Amino acid sequence: MLLRMSTLFVRTLREDPADAEVPSHRLLVRAGYIRRAAPGIYTWLPLGLRVLRKIERVVREEMDAIGAQEVHFPALLPREPYEATGRWTEYGPNVFRLQDRKEADYMLAPTHEELFTLLVKDLYSSYKDLPLALYQIQTKYRDEARPRAGLLRGREFVMKDAYSFDVDDAGLEASYQRQREAYLRIFARLGMDVVAVAAMSGAMGGSRSEEFLMPTSIGEDTFVRSAGGYAANVEAVTTPVPEPVPYDDAPAAHVEETPDTPTIATLVDHANAHFPRADRPWTAGDTLKNVVVVLEQADGEREVVAIGVPGDREVDVKRLEAAVSPATVAAATDADFARHPELVKGYIGPGVLGRAHTGREAAVRYLLDPRVVEGTRWITGANEEGRHVFDLVAGRDFTADGVVEAAEVRAGDPAPDGSGPLELARGIEMGHIFALGRKYAEALGLSVLNENGKAVTVTMGSYGIGVSRAVAALAETNHDDAGLAWPVQVAPAHVHLVATGKDPAVFAACEELAADLHGRGVEVLYDDRPKVSPGVKFADAELLGIPVVVVVGRGLAEGVVEVRLRRAGDAGLEAGARPEAEQVPVGQAADHVADLVTALLER
Amino acid sequence: MLLRMSTLFVRTLREDPADAEVPSHRLLVRAGYIRRAAPGIYTWLPLGLRVLRKIERVVREEMDAIGAQEVHFPALLPREPYEATGRWTEYGPNVFRLQDRKEADYMLAPTHEELFTLLVKDLYSSYKDLPLALYQIQTKYRDEARPRAGLLRGREFVMKDAYSFDVDDAGLEASYQRQREAYLRIFARLGMDVVAVAAMSGAMGGSRSEEFLMPTSIGEDTFVRSAGGYAANVEAVTTPVPEPVPYDDAPAAHVEETPDTPTIATLVDHANAHFPRADRPWTAGDTLKNVVVVLEQADGEREVVAIGVPGDREVDVKRLEAAVSPATVAAATDADFARHPELVKGYIGPGVLGRAHTGREAAVRYLLDPRVVEGTRWITGANEEGRHVFDLVAGRDFTADGVVEAAEVRAGDPAPDGSGPLELARGIEMGHIFALGRKYAEALGLSVLNENGKAVTVTMGSYGIGVSRAVAALAETNHDDAGLAWPVQVAPAHVHLVATGKDPAVFAACEELAADLHGRGVEVLYDDRPKVSPGVKFADAELLGIPVVVVVGRGLAEGVVEVRLRRAGDAGLEAGARPEAEQVPVGQAADHVADLVTALLER
Repeated sequence: MLLRMSTLFVRTLREDPADAEVPSHRLLVRAGYIRRAAPGIYTWLPLGLRVLRKIERVVREEMDAIGAQEVHFPALLPREPYEATGRWTEYGPNVFRLQDRKEADYMLAPTHEELFTLLVKDLYSSYKDLPLALYQIQTKYRDEARPRAGLLRGREFVMKDAYSFDVDDAGLEASYQRQREAYLRIFARLGMDVVAVAAMSGAMGGSRSEEFLMPTSIGEDTFVRSAGGYAANVEAVTTPVPEPVPYDDAPAAHVEETPDTPTIATLVDHANAHFPRADRPWTAGDTLKNVVVVLEQADGEREVVAIGVPGDREVDVKRLEAAVSPATVAAATDADFARHPELVKGYIGPGVLGRAHTGREAAVRYLLDPRVVEGTRWITGANEEGRHVFDLVAGRDFTADGVVEAAEVRAGDPAPDGSGPLELARGIEMGHIFALGRKYAEALGLSVLNENGKAVTVTMGSYGIGVSRAVAALAETNHDDAGLAWPVQVAPAHVHLVATGKDPAVFAACEELAADLHGRGVEVLYDDRPKVSPGVKFADAELLGIPVVVVVGRGLAEGVVEVRLRRAGDAGLEAGARPEAEQVPVGQAADHVADLVTALLER
Repeated sequence: MLLRMSTLFVRTLREDPADAEVPSHRLLVRAGYIRRAAPGIYTWLPLGLRVLRKIERVVREEMDAIGAQEVHFPALLPREPYEATGRWTEYGPNVFRLQDRKEADYMLAPTHEELFTLLVKDLYSSYKDLPLALYQIQTKYRDEARPRAGLLRGREFVMKDAYSFDVDDAGLEASYQRQREAYLRIFARLGMDVVAVAAMSGAMGGSRSEEFLMPTSIGEDTFVRSAGGYAANVEAVTTPVPEPVPYDDAPAAHVEETPDTPTIATLVDHANAHFPRADRPWTAGDTLKNVVVVLEQADGEREVVAIGVPGDREVDVKRLEAAVSPATVAAATDADFARHPELVKGYIGPGVLGRAHTGREAAVRYLLDPRVVEGTRWITGANEEGRHVFDLVAGRDFTADGVVEAAEVRAGDPAPDGSGPLELARGIEMGHIFALGRKYAEALGLSVLNENGKAVTVTMGSYGIGVSRAVAALAETNHDDAGLAWPVQVAPAHVHLVATGKDPAVFAACEELAADLHGRGVEVLYDDRPKVSPGVKFADAELLGIPVVVVVGRGLAEGVVEVRLRRAGDAGLEAGARPEAEQVPVGQAADHVADLVTALLER
């Protein structure tokens, strides 16, 4: 491949686009890889499309290598199959919906479990047909409330989605592991340092799921890991449940006057001032905070619930949403409080909460943090302005309607598997794999006859990779102040050849070198622009980020050209360092550059 | 590539699908290439996807060869650009429209002129940047009123659309010719015998357009050609305008009683019986038929118009629609007639028609066939029940508001360029190229500075090929009673290797042959199913239509395998003939088959 800057459809920008929040978005637009067509909807220019296709090729090769077969589904899909699994409603406002001229309902699919299930049902009927793995690389749609960060959270995007079909649980486990290993190979080939973390299955359903996160400070996902090897998306972290505490000697609960203590901080101060304990001061962890929120179902149903957490932790809405999915969480409004006059803001306590505890069908449902085990004693609201109750014992004085993982996870919290304290980090979700089980097959009637001629429901897995997102994620982790710096495996070209000055001999030498490299299968972007200054050309080379830069200019008179690596890492240097240029005799330039490219590709 | 029937995701059907009207649709479904997901919306199974990708590759290579650069636009597009060119309204119910969660309007794009125009405007500003050609291979949407014939008229489909940008007319002409020649090479490489015909630009706009039609009796497009080389879509045929006829000696028009003559046939009979002419009998061609229709604009506006054509020809609604595009044509209702009491059904004549002629603003607009030149004399309605007017002379007794090409074209009509009589045929529209001119650039403000620093509006061309439609068109012209019969260039594999019987030696020989061919780059589909009868395997091979069929079976004991071409044409035979099988010594089989594939590919 030989592209020429003089004709290539690209324009680099010196200014950052106004709407770009993160480096990958800024640089992909400035370097002329993508352009915005609408919020969260992008056009691929030639260089960007080349990167996308290279990533697709890696994904395709690894899918083919594990025997997954490629198919291609439409994006425009009828309502019926999604109705059968309940997802037509569950998706709520997150999908694009439309009607055709006959007023039939359609959606632009965000994922294709239903259609794959129906297709396999259509074609296959025997256990002998299984295991089966299918995949597609296809355009998907999601009507994000806040499309952001360019390709990282778009509304039209490219995904690889694969689906496995097995006759039993052992088969599903093997299929899941095959995909998992293929994913690790894909990310390794793309030069992506991902972390596989336990995740919530959410609206997708299923028994088990893992996310592949690429750590970066601008990532939307927070995850935890321990030195001992535990790793999970923060939504999936489970809290180790403490042993129950004996409470035979606990004093009876007693209500105290605590005027003007609507917050935990004011309450703790007041308690230490007026009701000091002998052994140590009261802390926020001694209080039980009851947070009132509303769970909204996709069909519009709203339910007021109270979440009880130790007062030293906030409720993490993302964790709460993952726990109550497919419901979403909204703030309680004045109207909600008006319908529950028993809730005294700032002084809410278990006394009026919970259907189980109060025996009232109309009571606010009460969900408790797992740390609030039987026998723990709390200071909490007395449901009267300016009063709290002390020594309220869980299991003795109050109970809840259920347990919920909604409290924030903090660095230093213990890993649930005992592998040590957790550290927190942020990452971009690059892939998500689900052991779905039989949810979709049951809803849509996908069964096969087993060896005994008996119909058994098929068990499925679903496996996604964000292909267009990978372009941005790679840009996010492969750039410096001057521009992009692609790994050779996904770079739009291997070599950026720059002719400087006006000497026709320079351009002639470049033409020859470009043709020679092209003939050897090296992909060359040749900056052949005759009237552009060296400074502009060098800045463009830095911005475009092609891994090997070859400059032909004044040195040609002494018989040398300059060869430089764009990436510090490719030169064995620390991030941020600038690799030295090498002077190479012009007669050896093609050999030298081709060898360099081969070495980079084989690394 | 080596696919195995034992694991390939395919099921062949012995029965035709109920909804399939045409052979390509029937066979692509029966052979397991595609499956219907919704009306006009299909899923690609592995074999179908391979054919689609091979066609894409040919298109891509030929686009790249003429210097067109590949980009990729979204399918989901905002309303604004389409509003600027008027197409948001013009498309009417033919596009899928939707709103996002913020109630912003979007469409699923059927074509991308607006977006390409805006993108070039965004990046380019100088005449030095031009000429430019861009293309994409992308999924498009059209909400067809009657999706039919499988992939031939779908609602979600794959197209290659290219756009050229030039600074002047000569540049556009050169760009147009480059695309035209690339199209002819693409169709030749795909083994498609297309006819380039003059076409109407319709809603697309522009000065000139040509369609590439593949002749077949099931085609939706009717076209004409003359022995002298004229070829046009029937909508684009222009009628040679006769010379005016002297009418100084013509008698005055006279109204006659013609009771019960509401049709042309009854009128001609009556005229011959009661008002015979001396030189010859009256014929339908002596009468002027006035057909009342309604033109509907996309915004809902309806206009009653009368179309005057010689009585021996019908109004061809497709020709009329092409002439009045973007308006569409509907039948006049009783309500329409009620609003125009001057129209007496069966006896409508020019007397009450035409604003120019009647001087009435409220009169029905009157459009005439080009054959009704000045001085021609007609029998036509007198606008009273049971009465017609004779010797009504065009230009003397009536005029119209305009001329329209709406009369049917008939075999034997003269070609407009004098190249002889026309013959009619049907075809599938495989491509359409438009010299758009400045319509989109003007509407969206795309100009560049010329050599003198003056802004000039860019002139554009737009060039489409139906890529998914090509799969069906190729199936339509490459099949026989037994199944599909692909040209090797697009076949999902080169060789269909069939193991028959149960002898392990047969399967071992097949494995060896398959591996050998695979190693030489030959694409093999190996029917390795152990418990399937030879009859079923042979029927599947016929149905799938891979061009070289190799059967290993009983002959192996004598050291031979059987090699047969699927297509009569590949064996140099007439269509419908069945090529003979050749017995090839097993030791030479790989060489023989690889050579055969090479020869077919190079043809």
